[in-house]
Amino acid sequence: MERSRFELAESAIPTAWYNVQADLPEPLPPVIHPGTKEPIGPEDLAPLFPMELIKQEVSQDRYVDIPETVRDMYRLWRPTPLVRARRLEQALDTPAHLYYKYEGVSPVGSHKPNTAVPQAYYNREEGITHLTTETGAGQWGSAMAMACAFLDLECEVYMVRVSYDGKPYRRTMMESYGAQVTASPSSSTAAGKRVLEGDPDSPGSLGIAISEAVEAAVASDGKKKYCLGSVLNHVLMHQTVIGQEALAQFEQAGEYPDVVVGCTGGGSSFGGFVLPLLAAKISGERDTRFVAVEPAAAPSLTAGRYTYDFGDEAATTPLIRMHTLGHGFVPAPIHAGGLRYHGMAPIVSHLYELGLIEAVAVHQIPVFDAAQLFTRTEGIVPAPAPSHALRVAIDEALRCKESGESKVIAFNLCGHGHFDMKAYRSYLDGELVNYEHTEEKIAAALEGVPAI
Amino acid sequence: MERSRFELAESAIPTAWYNVQADLPEPLPPVIHPGTKEPIGPEDLAPLFPMELIKQEVSQDRYVDIPETVRDMYRLWRPTPLVRARRLEQALDTPAHLYYKYEGVSPVGSHKPNTAVPQAYYNREEGITHLTTETGAGQWGSAMAMACAFLDLECEVYMVRVSYDGKPYRRTMMESYGAQVTASPSSSTAAGKRVLEGDPDSPGSLGIAISEAVEAAVASDGKKKYCLGSVLNHVLMHQTVIGQEALAQFEQAGEYPDVVVGCTGGGSSFGGFVLPLLAAKISGERDTRFVAVEPAAAPSLTAGRYTYDFGDEAATTPLIRMHTLGHGFVPAPIHAGGLRYHGMAPIVSHLYELGLIEAVAVHQIPVFDAAQLFTRTEGIVPAPAPSHALRVAIDEALRCKESGESKVIAFNLCGHGHFDMKAYRSYLDGELVNYEHTEEKIAAALEGVPAI
Repeated sequence: MERSRFELAESAIPTAWYNVQADLPEPLPPVIHPGTKEPIGPEDLAPLFPMELIKQEVSQDRYVDIPETVRDMYRLWRPTPLVRARRLEQALDTPAHLYYKYEGVSPVGSHKPNTAVPQAYYNREEGITHLTTETGAGQWGSAMAMACAFLDLECEVYMVRVSYDGKPYRRTMMESYGAQVTASPSSSTAAGKRVLEGDPDSPGSLGIAISEAVEAAVASDGKKKYCLGSVLNHVLMHQTVIGQEALAQFEQAGEYPDVVVGCTGGGSSFGGFVLPLLAAKISGERDTRFVAVEPAAAPSLTAGRYTYDFGDEAATTPLIRMHTLGHGFVPAPIHAGGLRYHGMAPIVSHLYELGLIEAVAVHQIPVFDAAQLFTRTEGIVPAPAPSHALRVAIDEALRCKESGESKVIAFNLCGHGHFDMKAYRSYLDGELVNYEHTEEKIAAALEGVPAI
Repeated sequence: MERSRFELAESAIPTAWYNVQADLPEPLPPVIHPGTKEPIGPEDLAPLFPMELIKQEVSQDRYVDIPETVRDMYRLWRPTPLVRARRLEQALDTPAHLYYKYEGVSPVGSHKPNTAVPQAYYNREEGITHLTTETGAGQWGSAMAMACAFLDLECEVYMVRVSYDGKPYRRTMMESYGAQVTASPSSSTAAGKRVLEGDPDSPGSLGIAISEAVEAAVASDGKKKYCLGSVLNHVLMHQTVIGQEALAQFEQAGEYPDVVVGCTGGGSSFGGFVLPLLAAKISGERDTRFVAVEPAAAPSLTAGRYTYDFGDEAATTPLIRMHTLGHGFVPAPIHAGGLRYHGMAPIVSHLYELGLIEAVAVHQIPVFDAAQLFTRTEGIVPAPAPSHALRVAIDEALRCKESGESKVIAFNLCGHGHFDMKAYRSYLDGELVNYEHTEEKIAAALEGVPAI
């Protein structure tokens, strides 16, 4: 029996996060204050984040030590397995070697706790007892709720109303961890009230929920801080435990990937897997291809503009240089809720501009075709978001079949689909649609991007 | 950092199943034909099962080799981790060492695929292309659906109507694997029609669903065979991969359990964990305590009678000597659907009679109290069934706190609760009840047990 699973001992959990900023050929553009149009300083972010995370956001150190308390919690699910998908390879009849790093083994079913735990930890270290955040489909909210349970923090989650009603099991999970979950828009914030006055039946949006969570933190006189599950530099850095483990596992396997694929919404799943492997490409040591896969319904890299824009719809955050569809862009209701974001992580955007990574946009029906094939061959029902990466990994493997090349292709299976069965139901019932004609929507939304 | 996770390489997946029948101090009583009252022969079971499984059912060999194809599929989720629950220990402030073997890492979220895969395999080896089975909450149906997807078999699942309607996501999961799922009672079998004639709105029961699945197999002229997910000797034997791995992992940990706890419905989760550790107790080498935990709503070991009874409500199966509440006993609607069975595996019953294992019955509210504590300390939301074992493991750990003993306590966490969020919702909303007064129901049902 040739090996398929590459497991590491818990002692192999990384001891430091990798900070790609140390190795970038050009530095990241600064974050800009929307009023002064000047680069922001730590004090601008202090009402929202603890100082250690603000430092990490701009750190140029190659490695940042992982606190022992955080590593101790990581081992509840880390190291995660790297698996060679032999049965999928057989079904595709491809000479390619297909690997997936499986983050669905975490208690909440995704990679999100990798950053939720350190974010909760640093807040607690600085005396914070109460955190606010938003969640769409619920993956990030679940991760924060769990992290807060571990560290005895209060957790306040603003959950987009349409998900609150449609995905009640995610809410139950968060409440099982002890979190307080509020449907957004709510009447407990000014931002929420404003929306409800205009539309008492508003289904909510991630943008509104962010505004509520931010307001709740800012209005607390420093008692509460706010947490974000993607986009920011420190979030991507925390996720690099994924790629670091994968490097050790590829060494076990005696192979090195030719093509690395990840899905991109805010960029944390992609960044976590890719960044530790990117150093060898930047240095010229390896010629790995890195492919970011985004939904055709929110194609920030492939169809957005690289410019300064707000991180939220309500235009309250600092301005970030990134690939954006315009902060007013509302993606079509695809089932990969975590990929429905108008912007892209500054690090991922920067790498794309530098030509170090590629990007491709895919529609959801072929994504679910790939997910079903994976389910029937490898057993795991994948979440809709990483199924985007899976789709492109399969396409690469099929190209290998044509060319006869036995490339090594790896993708980040960053979550399972146990809470996404409604989406699979739609797929099985033939009710899924590919959303076309986003171009006009993008053009309109880009008109709202501020001039810098 | 002291170790908490004990992972094995895939090469450590057992190469044979352990058959406790070889080591029993007294042999199991024979299975009896309800008409002749004589022990049944292989030909009596041939319409339902492939010959290899019938042989395994009565085999006296200590080990039965695991086919390489089955091991190859096992490694999609095996070996599973053994984890020391250090955070739970801290929360309990106990000197005890608490370990759990975690079977929830399988793609369907439980230990059930350990036997679903070999059952599908042996059927396929004997030329069968179509399998029938029943499922209550859906764990077993999902496992069979996955196994059939792996081996290109048709899978026909009769799902208890109340679960079909109330747990639609399990149905979606089974259909994603390609299975055909029918709400039971259905109009596609005589047994189903009979029930529907009496009550067109029948919510169904496991007993009815078994009758439908058995009928579909028997009526197929050998084209279809039937599969069962617990109770039978070969099912418990397939599950011994759990305990065998655990033995290797305890060796890594440098500890050996003093108390081993498992939940019992049909007995497969308990048997799979316990049987490989029992040999050392039978031989006198170890003095381990083994505790079977059953729901107070279906207390076959602690309040049933050890006698010959039918395996199904419709009284169509051979007669099995086991602890039974009477085949007409319908357990109260507790959330641990997999534990709602009137009988107990013959092997588990026999061990209880021999005094080799203990048994205790627990109510569901304290079970969910334990589950919530586990969720908030260890992160994993446990399924209601293994939360019964968890409850008793915690009680043992609390006794150690009083006595000051640092016993090693281990339990089988045989599944996660991702598809049981409705139960957690009831718990959080204070709507859960403990079902009392089952004694009269049991006394009435025992009157229907046949006289042998």
